[in-house]
Amino acid sequence: MYRSNTCGELRLSNVGSEVKLAGWVQKVRKMGGMTFVDLRDRYGITQIVFDEGKNADLTAQANHVGREWVIQVTGKVCERSNKNTQIPTGEIEIIADNMKVLSKSEVPPFTIEDNSDGGDDLRMQYRYLDLRRKPVLNNLVLRHNIAFETRRYLDSQGFLEVETPVLIKSTPEGARDFVVPSRMNQGQFYALPQSPQQFKQLLMVGGIDRYFQIVKCFRDEDLRADRQPEFTQIDCEMSYVEQEDVLQMFEGMIKHIFKYARGVEFTDSFPRLTWHECMKRFGSDKPDMRFGMEFVELKNVKEGGDDLVSGHSFTVFDGANFVVAICANGCASWTRKQLDQMTEFVKRPQVGAKGLVYIQMKEDGTIKSSVDKFYDEASLRKIADKANAKAGDLILILCGDDAMKVRSQMNTLRLEMGDRLELRDKNKFAPLWVIDFPLFEWNEEDQRFYAMHHPFTSPKLEDVQYLDSDPGRVRANAYDLAMNGVELGGGSVRIHDSELQNKMFQLLGFTQEKAQDQFGCLMTAFKYGAPPHAGLAFGLDRVVSMLAGLDSIRDCIAFPKNNSGRDTMMDCPSVIDDAQLEELCLKVDIKE
Amino acid sequence: MYRSNTCGELRLSNVGSEVKLAGWVQKVRKMGGMTFVDLRDRYGITQIVFDEGKNADLTAQANHVGREWVIQVTGKVCERSNKNTQIPTGEIEIIADNMKVLSKSEVPPFTIEDNSDGGDDLRMQYRYLDLRRKPVLNNLVLRHNIAFETRRYLDSQGFLEVETPVLIKSTPEGARDFVVPSRMNQGQFYALPQSPQQFKQLLMVGGIDRYFQIVKCFRDEDLRADRQPEFTQIDCEMSYVEQEDVLQMFEGMIKHIFKYARGVEFTDSFPRLTWHECMKRFGSDKPDMRFGMEFVELKNVKEGGDDLVSGHSFTVFDGANFVVAICANGCASWTRKQLDQMTEFVKRPQVGAKGLVYIQMKEDGTIKSSVDKFYDEASLRKIADKANAKAGDLILILCGDDAMKVRSQMNTLRLEMGDRLELRDKNKFAPLWVIDFPLFEWNEEDQRFYAMHHPFTSPKLEDVQYLDSDPGRVRANAYDLAMNGVELGGGSVRIHDSELQNKMFQLLGFTQEKAQDQFGCLMTAFKYGAPPHAGLAFGLDRVVSMLAGLDSIRDCIAFPKNNSGRDTMMDCPSVIDDAQLEELCLKVDIKE
Repeated sequence: MYRSNTCGELRLSNVGSEVKLAGWVQKVRKMGGMTFVDLRDRYGITQIVFDEGKNADLTAQANHVGREWVIQVTGKVCERSNKNTQIPTGEIEIIADNMKVLSKSEVPPFTIEDNSDGGDDLRMQYRYLDLRRKPVLNNLVLRHNIAFETRRYLDSQGFLEVETPVLIKSTPEGARDFVVPSRMNQGQFYALPQSPQQFKQLLMVGGIDRYFQIVKCFRDEDLRADRQPEFTQIDCEMSYVEQEDVLQMFEGMIKHIFKYARGVEFTDSFPRLTWHECMKRFGSDKPDMRFGMEFVELKNVKEGGDDLVSGHSFTVFDGANFVVAICANGCASWTRKQLDQMTEFVKRPQVGAKGLVYIQMKEDGTIKSSVDKFYDEASLRKIADKANAKAGDLILILCGDDAMKVRSQMNTLRLEMGDRLELRDKNKFAPLWVIDFPLFEWNEEDQRFYAMHHPFTSPKLEDVQYLDSDPGRVRANAYDLAMNGVELGGGSVRIHDSELQNKMFQLLGFTQEKAQDQFGCLMTAFKYGAPPHAGLAFGLDRVVSMLAGLDSIRDCIAFPKNNSGRDTMMDCPSVIDDAQLEELCLKVDIKE
Repeated sequence: MYRSNTCGELRLSNVGSEVKLAGWVQKVRKMGGMTFVDLRDRYGITQIVFDEGKNADLTAQANHVGREWVIQVTGKVCERSNKNTQIPTGEIEIIADNMKVLSKSEVPPFTIEDNSDGGDDLRMQYRYLDLRRKPVLNNLVLRHNIAFETRRYLDSQGFLEVETPVLIKSTPEGARDFVVPSRMNQGQFYALPQSPQQFKQLLMVGGIDRYFQIVKCFRDEDLRADRQPEFTQIDCEMSYVEQEDVLQMFEGMIKHIFKYARGVEFTDSFPRLTWHECMKRFGSDKPDMRFGMEFVELKNVKEGGDDLVSGHSFTVFDGANFVVAICANGCASWTRKQLDQMTEFVKRPQVGAKGLVYIQMKEDGTIKSSVDKFYDEASLRKIADKANAKAGDLILILCGDDAMKVRSQMNTLRLEMGDRLELRDKNKFAPLWVIDFPLFEWNEEDQRFYAMHHPFTSPKLEDVQYLDSDPGRVRANAYDLAMNGVELGGGSVRIHDSELQNKMFQLLGFTQEKAQDQFGCLMTAFKYGAPPHAGLAFGLDRVVSMLAGLDSIRDCIAFPKNNSGRDTMMDCPSVIDDAQLEELCLKVDIKE
């Protein structure tokens, strides 16, 4: 051992001990005849003191070391006269009687401090230096703890962690699979799994009963800020259960993780909303429940209900199928400039609204609105009453023809208002089970239905009757866990009956051959006694980000890739040898 | 829930309870008016009784179910009159009052019994049915427990599990890398990791201090019985440690795993042997220490020592550089046929010996040997004394010019003798640390040295002086853990000095460019303060096989691939769409 103690563990009770420490030089300060070195490792920082008066040679040597050098120091633990109450080791210091340089360092490309001067690109290129920074390290520690507590909970509930293959079957449809050419099977390819879905269902057919796996999955997509080509799932499946059992089990898991990895206790059961309610009240299937500001429908031609806006010669509302409002408490006093900003916000192409109508419920009891000339005070008060607005509140209104589109726009506006009003506290966690998802999703472009989750999802028994006549009406036994506006995970009860499964493939437009080619193994397996089963998967990266309060999943991954799927530290991907290509029977053929 | 209890938990104390069970039909037996169904799940088997006298309809229904159907049964727990002491649930049975078929089954292609009638190929094709068999299930349970206990131990020792990337840099040298074409970076490839070696060293540079990961690794090799294209490593690395610290830490881990996952306690420290001793005494760097039968050198021209065989006109020994014996206790009475079998054994091309000489130390005190006509009794007795042979023992002798080749042959013979004498008990575990491996390995074909472990392995400080003058003499700070003749894991102290690392690359024949291309990132990292570090990796598949007493790693893997790297269940690898190839800028080009 190069050390008797870490840089984070010595306290007043150790005063008088001879110790040996090793670590990185965080800082060197000279004060008079004394040199102070802050020595850092994963566990903390300890102050080392070199006294020129007592040992001139050693102190000269210490004056010579630079930031991020690795040194080893022996000395005696002493009480500090000038205590640092900010750090746990701040009451002591080490009076050095020996020092050895274990490894020198060039000047690092950015400062290794909590707030570094390094930009994102530089920090990614030298990620190994970035990892020395406490905020990044803390994320990895948290990630370890979350994974460990996940396993501890699931092990205690009888789940077996079973490794499923990484080299799996490539399906012709899976245009977004990463593929791996096989040298031993010329011209053939493996694929990397987008999820172990079929394997975990096969494990249920195999009687494993309760399966989980913390597992890498892969998707060759164009990347956004919160996507990585490889990501990690907490993948789970259970046999002989119904939806309620799954929700209970994994609500328990999330509670366990939050408690043991972050000290957050959820005392109540997680609230539940149907997908339909979510869309109606929040315009999202993963609403942020940390704040209210629920949607108030002022007009809904398709679904009926009161129409509070038509017939006032305001042609925008008169011509719209759907008009919806939110009420922002205490915002009546917003300036014209602030209101214009919000109008600009909703008109951005990413949101896509045509405009924004507002009603200010002034503190003095008066009302002011951007549509004053169309609506008298009584009409505006009716709207305000419906929106539960009091004096001091601000009502924001959007409209359009497609209710789902307007809801989505209003969702974005609601979240923006939540941000501006600081209603989205990173230390508050608002879980929500979203249930009763539709089984199918209509695709306007292709003029056909697609499975909203995947083709193995079971319809609700009472809705099976509509499978042929009105597929859009069929609800699935599918569920998501949303938290703070993020989907942490989701899953479904699976079909375990090969006839119903065949029916689903048929409805989804699979030919017999295509279904056989892609799912043949599972369909055969279902012929040999498949138990009822259900499962779900959580995104580990998202769970960690949520608990760490991060905006991007990137900072909870040790070695992430950038938006082009590149690892700039390793400089990968890269070209490969012609000899290797030849062995794989491949030719690169780049079209100009 | 489809059940109130599992099929493995009901006991006499539950008698009188109304229960609901669900599972697979193992067996249906009709006896008089009674029908007995053995219902099976992961947890056990419970007997269900249908009484025609009490419920004719239900019993008729039960008579109709077949093997591997999935049924749900409600009924009352009763004490059995005819108890089965072989299973934990054997004292009770369920008198059924209701039954529901959850899923029918075709007749399975092989019997789902501990000893199945299914051949390997069939079992692999229907692996999901094979998993229902108890021996296979038990292996997966054991694997889960081993992985869980590994994590529990390492977590308690302050190790962080950090996920390293699966999509990494492909190096031109790595002809045995699996590669993954990148769609977003045309003409470029990722590789799948053969191990996270560079990443874990970067994590040490990053101050992670103690890292581990249970991680999939990949090797596109021609496969043998105990190899898979994807395999799982327990990968570990520590900072500020020396070899001794690593051995202590991971001896602790292995002891923990054996204790908590299998109930085996090692009371003593693991023995240690240098690589040189291992080769000299057992002819292997992973000797099976469950039995003795150590090598006795009768002649060793290169290293000196007594020559007990030359000068007797036996030209075979006279002309050989190396003659070595083992003594098999109690085998003097072996028949001529048995001895001929052993001669045939060593002459097989896989072993490659020219012949086998034996000396039988008969119980009556006489001596008989295959080289009687060259050696008088006194000479034979001298050999016997050297080999510590007593009356009743059998001495087996091999010879040749290349000591290492003969040792390897004798190792194979020793293990075969161990098998025949039943000295290799699967329930006995004999660990051994093999230390002081040579740093380099001479390659006769290429006439150059290669790194025996990998180029990051640190030479012993006292041997650095021979790096230039006598590389073959340099020992490494490298170590393996062998057990029962299997290498469970191994590792080394790493070089953390960029100058020494450069020197190593130079000795290994890397040009500056090649070293930069393959290891550039790590070499740059070493310029910013690298701590002394060391690590090792265990093969999880091998550890599980060892504890499960398996001959092949295949049976401890849920979905293994065959010797051609194929998954016959999923039928993979397979051809992919031209459209997908085009998107990847690839053309398949199979040479006839």
